[in-house]
Amino acid sequence: MSATIPDAYLDLLKKNIFASFVTLMADGSPQVTPVWIDFDGTYFVVNSALGRMKDRNIRRDPRVALSLSDPENPYRYLEVRGRVVEITQDGADEHVNAMAKKYLGQDVYPFRQPGEERVIYRIEADRISTMG
Amino acid sequence: MSATIPDAYLDLLKKNIFASFVTLMADGSPQVTPVWIDFDGTYFVVNSALGRMKDRNIRRDPRVALSLSDPENPYRYLEVRGRVVEITQDGADEHVNAMAKKYLGQDVYPFRQPGEERVIYRIEADRISTMG
Repeated sequence: MSATIPDAYLDLLKKNIFASFVTLMADGSPQVTPVWIDFDGTYFVVNSALGRMKDRNIRRDPRVALSLSDPENPYRYLEVRGRVVEITQDGADEHVNAMAKKYLGQDVYPFRQPGEERVIYRIEADRISTMG
Repeated sequence: MSATIPDAYLDLLKKNIFASFVTLMADGSPQVTPVWIDFDGTYFVVNSALGRMKDRNIRRDPRVALSLSDPENPYRYLEVRGRVVEITQDGADEHVNAMAKKYLGQDVYPFRQPGEERVIYRIEADRISTMG
């Protein structure tokens, strides 16, 4: 059974706030980058591209973490520990366009590189902590 | 030999920007929280308290990661992978007061709990990546 986001923190997922998203390198050491973040009501959803460091890391070890801070109050944040439970390219192009709409106000994701294949990672939260 | 911060990103460490700081749990899974961050010219410096989750995690496994994003441009960020090379309580009270000055404009750290013992973690960067 996955952890639940307290209602009082759902606003963080509706705004265009970046999440700090952590994956594990081959030697088990952590790596963190800011990412666009989505929540579908059940899973956190991150969109990346085939072959990138995050993609390779997640396929090796699905354990991830993420945090989201309120830009208006950095002492108010949501912290998630969990696992990627689904990796798929199905719908990943449409999804990255929806993310471009949320974060950039653009209908089509503008940063696509030649040959880039988008991938969706669905994350189940095992533990959610909040502060502030 | 530790990695070097490009001069063009040093401003991120002078502002009162929170870092997303990653430690590893006992089972090797990652955990991330926003923290106050300092850079002493050689090491990144984080201040926490004895017995906290971060403290316990670092003493077990010194491998950490952190990222710092420009609040005025979230596509501009600094990402660090490294190891805690020193854990000390020496100077930790003075340091947390200096951090309170940087982040809150206050001379004395105002969040101290009864019995809290502050700890400094000095982080050597093995790898620094920048974006934006």
